[in-house]
Amino acid sequence: MSKSHRIKLSHRSPKQRAKKVGLPPGSLVHLGEVKTAAVDLSIIEYDDSGLSEVKFADTAAWQAYTPKHATHWLNLHGLHDTALLREIGTRYGLHPLVQEDILNTDQRPKVESYGEYLYVVARYVNYDTDTLSVNSDQVSLVLARKAVLSFQERSCGTFEPVRGRLRSGRGQIRKLGADYLAYALLDAMVDQYFVVLEQLSEHTEELEDALLEKPDQESLQTLHKLRRATHNLRRAVWPLREVLNTLIRNEDGFFQPGTGVYLRDVYDHTVHIVESIEALRDLQAGMLDVYLSSLSNRFNVELRALTVITTLFMPAALVAGIFGMNFKHMPWLDLPHGFGLAMGLMGGIALVMVSIFWRRNWLR
Amino acid sequence: MSKSHRIKLSHRSPKQRAKKVGLPPGSLVHLGEVKTAAVDLSIIEYDDSGLSEVKFADTAAWQAYTPKHATHWLNLHGLHDTALLREIGTRYGLHPLVQEDILNTDQRPKVESYGEYLYVVARYVNYDTDTLSVNSDQVSLVLARKAVLSFQERSCGTFEPVRGRLRSGRGQIRKLGADYLAYALLDAMVDQYFVVLEQLSEHTEELEDALLEKPDQESLQTLHKLRRATHNLRRAVWPLREVLNTLIRNEDGFFQPGTGVYLRDVYDHTVHIVESIEALRDLQAGMLDVYLSSLSNRFNVELRALTVITTLFMPAALVAGIFGMNFKHMPWLDLPHGFGLAMGLMGGIALVMVSIFWRRNWLR
Amino acid sequence: MSKSHRIKLSHRSPKQRAKKVGLPPGSLVHLGEVKTAAVDLSIIEYDDSGLSEVKFADTAAWQAYTPKHATHWLNLHGLHDTALLREIGTRYGLHPLVQEDILNTDQRPKVESYGEYLYVVARYVNYDTDTLSVNSDQVSLVLARKAVLSFQERSCGTFEPVRGRLRSGRGQIRKLGADYLAYALLDAMVDQYFVVLEQLSEHTEELEDALLEKPDQESLQTLHKLRRATHNLRRAVWPLREVLNTLIRNEDGFFQPGTGVYLRDVYDHTVHIVESIEALRDLQAGMLDVYLSSLSNRFNVELRALTVITTLFMPAALVAGIFGMNFKHMPWLDLPHGFGLAMGLMGGIALVMVSIFWRRNWLR
Amino acid sequence: MSKSHRIKLSHRSPKQRAKKVGLPPGSLVHLGEVKTAAVDLSIIEYDDSGLSEVKFADTAAWQAYTPKHATHWLNLHGLHDTALLREIGTRYGLHPLVQEDILNTDQRPKVESYGEYLYVVARYVNYDTDTLSVNSDQVSLVLARKAVLSFQERSCGTFEPVRGRLRSGRGQIRKLGADYLAYALLDAMVDQYFVVLEQLSEHTEELEDALLEKPDQESLQTLHKLRRATHNLRRAVWPLREVLNTLIRNEDGFFQPGTGVYLRDVYDHTVHIVESIEALRDLQAGMLDVYLSSLSNRFNVELRALTVITTLFMPAALVAGIFGMNFKHMPWLDLPHGFGLAMGLMGGIALVMVSIFWRRNWLR
Amino acid sequence: MSKSHRIKLSHRSPKQRAKKVGLPPGSLVHLGEVKTAAVDLSIIEYDDSGLSEVKFADTAAWQAYTPKHATHWLNLHGLHDTALLREIGTRYGLHPLVQEDILNTDQRPKVESYGEYLYVVARYVNYDTDTLSVNSDQVSLVLARKAVLSFQERSCGTFEPVRGRLRSGRGQIRKLGADYLAYALLDAMVDQYFVVLEQLSEHTEELEDALLEKPDQESLQTLHKLRRATHNLRRAVWPLREVLNTLIRNEDGFFQPGTGVYLRDVYDHTVHIVESIEALRDLQAGMLDVYLSSLSNRFNVELRALTVITTLFMPAALVAGIFGMNFKHMPWLDLPHGFGLAMGLMGGIALVMVSIFWRRNWLR
Repeated sequence: MSKSHRIKLSHRSPKQRAKKVGLPPGSLVHLGEVKTAAVDLSIIEYDDSGLSEVKFADTAAWQAYTPKHATHWLNLHGLHDTALLREIGTRYGLHPLVQEDILNTDQRPKVESYGEYLYVVARYVNYDTDTLSVNSDQVSLVLARKAVLSFQERSCGTFEPVRGRLRSGRGQIRKLGADYLAYALLDAMVDQYFVVLEQLSEHTEELEDALLEKPDQESLQTLHKLRRATHNLRRAVWPLREVLNTLIRNEDGFFQPGTGVYLRDVYDHTVHIVESIEALRDLQAGMLDVYLSSLSNRFNVELRALTVITTLFMPAALVAGIFGMNFKHMPWLDLPHGFGLAMGLMGGIALVMVSIFWRRNWLR
Repeated sequence: MSKSHRIKLSHRSPKQRAKKVGLPPGSLVHLGEVKTAAVDLSIIEYDDSGLSEVKFADTAAWQAYTPKHATHWLNLHGLHDTALLREIGTRYGLHPLVQEDILNTDQRPKVESYGEYLYVVARYVNYDTDTLSVNSDQVSLVLARKAVLSFQERSCGTFEPVRGRLRSGRGQIRKLGADYLAYALLDAMVDQYFVVLEQLSEHTEELEDALLEKPDQESLQTLHKLRRATHNLRRAVWPLREVLNTLIRNEDGFFQPGTGVYLRDVYDHTVHIVESIEALRDLQAGMLDVYLSSLSNRFNVELRALTVITTLFMPAALVAGIFGMNFKHMPWLDLPHGFGLAMGLMGGIALVMVSIFWRRNWLR
Repeated sequence: MSKSHRIKLSHRSPKQRAKKVGLPPGSLVHLGEVKTAAVDLSIIEYDDSGLSEVKFADTAAWQAYTPKHATHWLNLHGLHDTALLREIGTRYGLHPLVQEDILNTDQRPKVESYGEYLYVVARYVNYDTDTLSVNSDQVSLVLARKAVLSFQERSCGTFEPVRGRLRSGRGQIRKLGADYLAYALLDAMVDQYFVVLEQLSEHTEELEDALLEKPDQESLQTLHKLRRATHNLRRAVWPLREVLNTLIRNEDGFFQPGTGVYLRDVYDHTVHIVESIEALRDLQAGMLDVYLSSLSNRFNVELRALTVITTLFMPAALVAGIFGMNFKHMPWLDLPHGFGLAMGLMGGIALVMVSIFWRRNWLR
Repeated sequence: MSKSHRIKLSHRSPKQRAKKVGLPPGSLVHLGEVKTAAVDLSIIEYDDSGLSEVKFADTAAWQAYTPKHATHWLNLHGLHDTALLREIGTRYGLHPLVQEDILNTDQRPKVESYGEYLYVVARYVNYDTDTLSVNSDQVSLVLARKAVLSFQERSCGTFEPVRGRLRSGRGQIRKLGADYLAYALLDAMVDQYFVVLEQLSEHTEELEDALLEKPDQESLQTLHKLRRATHNLRRAVWPLREVLNTLIRNEDGFFQPGTGVYLRDVYDHTVHIVESIEALRDLQAGMLDVYLSSLSNRFNVELRALTVITTLFMPAALVAGIFGMNFKHMPWLDLPHGFGLAMGLMGGIALVMVSIFWRRNWLR
Repeated sequence: MSKSHRIKLSHRSPKQRAKKVGLPPGSLVHLGEVKTAAVDLSIIEYDDSGLSEVKFADTAAWQAYTPKHATHWLNLHGLHDTALLREIGTRYGLHPLVQEDILNTDQRPKVESYGEYLYVVARYVNYDTDTLSVNSDQVSLVLARKAVLSFQERSCGTFEPVRGRLRSGRGQIRKLGADYLAYALLDAMVDQYFVVLEQLSEHTEELEDALLEKPDQESLQTLHKLRRATHNLRRAVWPLREVLNTLIRNEDGFFQPGTGVYLRDVYDHTVHIVESIEALRDLQAGMLDVYLSSLSNRFNVELRALTVITTLFMPAALVAGIFGMNFKHMPWLDLPHGFGLAMGLMGGIALVMVSIFWRRNWLR
């Protein structure tokens, strides 16, 4: 069996973690795989009047840049350039622990308030249809009064629809501030959960048909993989629900009352996803029961069939044995049709037994 | 096996949901099946002095209409006419997210307060006795100070008794305001839960008798279907209980103190339903255990019976084998009744064994 | 199998409930079986100075009657005379929903405060030792400032000890007011729970001995019935505990501080009962496990025994077959004691095998 | 199986309880076994300056006695002298319900505040190593401002260490007041829980070794007894934890701030015990699984071994059968070494099969 | 099976505990194994300006010593010198119960506030890869305003990184006060939990592969050990999470606001660990199911294979029996190729059966 379906209990291997032992807190070490070669830093700034977009070639270019519009969104793909991260941290006044958490990409979703800004950790999930596994990337969001910063290990296209809406000016996204942008980014991630959930559901239902038709060992392992994938999805979305709940109740004024309604909407979506995941898990648990029961049932039927065959031969063998005895005086032996009579006796007994077993439904 | 008994994890298929990806929130797209051809918009307005009822042929007719009585109830069947919905939303000042939620007909029951009105999502359940599945339609209610708006994908007759009471003027429904009407509509939906629950209970009890008499694979699948139907019913009623609890504790004054008593009554009904569902689930879980145990028991008894038959033939076959040996000097062979003695020996041993097995109760 | 052990999920059959569909709330329709032919209305009135008791022949007699003592207790057996109930409701100012709930005799225990009076629903349980089922009757109590009203479908003797104490003037029951009477009635009902619980425990323990001696299908069904009966008892007492808790914390002053101590005592009893029920359920669940394990064990032992017998005959049959071969030159055949040698060989092998199986403990 | 391991669901048998039916609350009837012949009433009174101890021969002696020191501890062994109890109740102003609860020795642990005193019910446990059962005695404590009263059905030595400390004047027990004494008594009882828990753990671990070596029916029943004993222990300690928590948070000033720290310490002990009990229950549940699995495994291995033997004989029997046929022209029959060849063929086939089965590890 | 994998329900054996029975609370008796020969007392004192470190040869040296820097950390390895502990307790004003708890090294993690100082019990875990068991040592921390005291039974290297950071002056550890030091010590212990968790995960995953390839009894026992080790880890970390939560919410001002952020970080780590442990437990539970299912499956396949072999021989044996009968007139017997025909018949029937079984997939 391939190792691909394992629950990754921790994204850092012991060796990776060993890098950090003995270092003071706030030391910036990237714990995680390097998932993209290039570090990619860009800013989209906008307000009601317009939008401009810059992709920075190097740190110097970014340091020289000052946003002109009311709201700006800084996005960073690739986290192994710790020097750049420290620069960003210094410019936006990020606490050393926040910088450390951005680099430790195995965090569970959480939200922390640092007075000047909110730090949100969420996880972007995707479903690998080959290995039937759900993996997740950490996405760190920093919501300041007039800016949103987002940090990811690689570009995965989740935020493209939001960029599209910003560029086209559709909806009210440009009119509302940084808080609405943060909402839009969270919403885009939650939408992806729905997609993964639906793929998982579909695979589970396909497997269910397969299991009912032919319960074999392979299907069992596929079920095993699907259960783990569902479990991983659950682990990513479960704390995210709490994050959204905390954001709704946050009283530092990062979210304007109008945006609160939208947050509540995303929160409802996460509740919906959590419930669907529970239903999916129930379904999968039920499938395991049905599988085990069918399997045991099949073996029982087969064993009964084989034993029935054995039993059918017993009387015929006995008849043959009886007429093979060496007594001087035995009936039938000298009759011209003695052999035929014996064969008829054998056949007759077998027929009676078959009819009994048939009526008892033991011949399948 | 037919696909009909599956838990619908989401009412929107991935394709339907794809319509919405990348759209700003509040975009009106009907996610759901089109369950009725005609869009059907009607108003019942009433107060203590009388009642009048209008069915609108087109949007223009409705736009020209102004209710004259103190309270009115606007009902819409069919949600694919998004333009009409936007008109209604504008006239009653519904938030874009509310309009969106009305169209996304896979919402879980919830209640939201928007200051000027309460938005309630409930689900109307019905039980398909052919496929043994519980399906649910979303019903959106908007409770304003002097009006109730209700939105459904199709007409399903739930609200007919309420209409009847309004028309006949029986009870106090015309005397009390919009809040009492909202209560009456919720009550009508909860009544339907009782009906579905009783049908499910009846089918479950019928199945129980069938399972105890003859545990076969088909009954198991019926049980599987019933468990899913019960699960679906539970998923619809569970959050509805919370909705009612929230309505009772709502402090925006939408419900007058007198109506609160009635709401508490409906709440008690949902608690009763939830408890009965748990009892039903326990019963179904117990049936699965009993089924598996009976099945395994039956196979064991059958296998024992077959093995007993085999065992009964062993000594006779050995006796035949012994008298078939070619020794020069053997007892009995030359006796005139040697054959009879041998047969008697065989029969005698078999009788002794049968009597032992009989006493041990191994012959069923 | 008889139907008697089923969990009654709802006391109203669909047909009975159909009587009510479409009626406005507060419509008085008796949903439940008519359990007693005669409607029986009586009043006991008392205070420190004395007691008088009246049984009314008809409604008119009751209407003409005015209690003279400080406290009175009105009791009604039989609920199908809805006109009488409406009269009582009018005289004591009972809310239409309370009147409706008195008639719907499948309510779960609850308490509701209506300002002038408290409405309490409790359930009186009894245990049918023939069908091993626990049934419950609804008892509605109305506690007003100076009166207690009690409504039951039939007389079941629970309140007799309270009547006895009132009549004899033993204890302080006549000195304390209506609240103490309400407590005494609840206490009498809770005492009955102890009796039913002890009968259930006794039957369960008897069954346990039976199961350990001889695990058969019949015992399994008895266990099934006992589990349902326990479940039904739990469903009646569980919400009653909450009712008592609510009464203790009630701040409308229906209960004087002195009576509060007594209520807490009844509450402790219900907690005790709930815990004992949980212990009983654990015991029953454990019995099912032991039963299934013993059953499977027994079949395994039997199958092994039968297979051992078969195995014991194999070598003897082979020896017989060998000496039945038709080779020209074979050993032993011509010896005078050849047959005896062969028989000895058969017996010897069998003895060796028996001794091996014996040492392995395979012969039971 | 002996009845000794049963969960005592209630210490009062139905007959005992029947004594009380119909009596007003507060009636003093001793419900419980009479566990000691003599009623034994004694007082220890002490303060910083000294200690004096009296054992009363009869009620009159006690009535004549007045404590001279600041704090006194009245202890009563034997509860069947209800007249004496009523005397004590009158002298210390105990509520009739408290007097009743002292006599009903099947109460679950609880604490109740009556203004002038606290009433605490705890249970003293002991472990019967013969029947492997945990039994518990009720200990009632009344904590007044300057006195502690303790009531038990029999003397069981738990409080001896406390008496010893009082007599010797070790520690600060004489300096601190009645609240510290109450703490010391509770602490002594909780210490006994540790002892019982350790005995249970030891027996469980011994059984585990036995089960792994030889899974037989007897071990299963021992496991059953141990699980019930653990369950009984849990039922006694679980509510005691709540009692201690309530005492810590009690605001009536019965406990001085300095004693609160000690109470918290006892509370920590009960939490520790509860956790250890849960671990023990997990261990026992796991043992059942392992037992059932080993048992089923053993039967499977045995059945396979027996079937392998049967299978080994089949080809040899067929060879014998073939050379027993009566064809005129058959090979080998006339060879001088034909018989040897046939025997070699049988042996050869058997050897091949044994080697195959051996490699498949089917011969154990 | 070795005893090493047992859940240690209590670190004190009954005998050890017996030392304490009857002693007043606060009596200093070391309950626990003596894990190190030498008692080792040392102080590190530091502030922004520098650091000095002293290891005391005897109690007198320590008594003569006065720290000069703002903050100092006293560490004690080895707890059997109760006189020394009493000295330390007196000097720092530790409550007798705290001194007692330091010596009772089987405490569960907790935090207690004594006004002048906080007392924290944590447990340091380590994983024994030979016995696959998780053991834990108690670490007691006392956080005073200007000092941290730490007490352990033996030196285990956990605090070395913190000492290293103090000595090198890296990070801000010297600038911040005693509260930051306490955080650093807790953080070092939590880091060790990650290491143990990762080792457990790795072993579990290795075992999973082994189980899927070859489900044998030995793997089952390894699984058993791993489950207990995981359980022990959970017991140590679960209450530690609560400790950290309490520290964060502590309002006595022991932790400066700046340190609170770091505490929250450690708290997040414990939450992460708890979740990973739950996932690991799920994985292990699933492995048990898969193991039992594979095992039963394997036996079923083997039994079927053996029964198939038996069945294949039945017809051939019958044919041989038939031609061994002694009838005068029998077909084929006199044919020159009669024997060949009979053998062909036997072979043909066997071939047909093999092909049927093959198609049914019964021959593996």
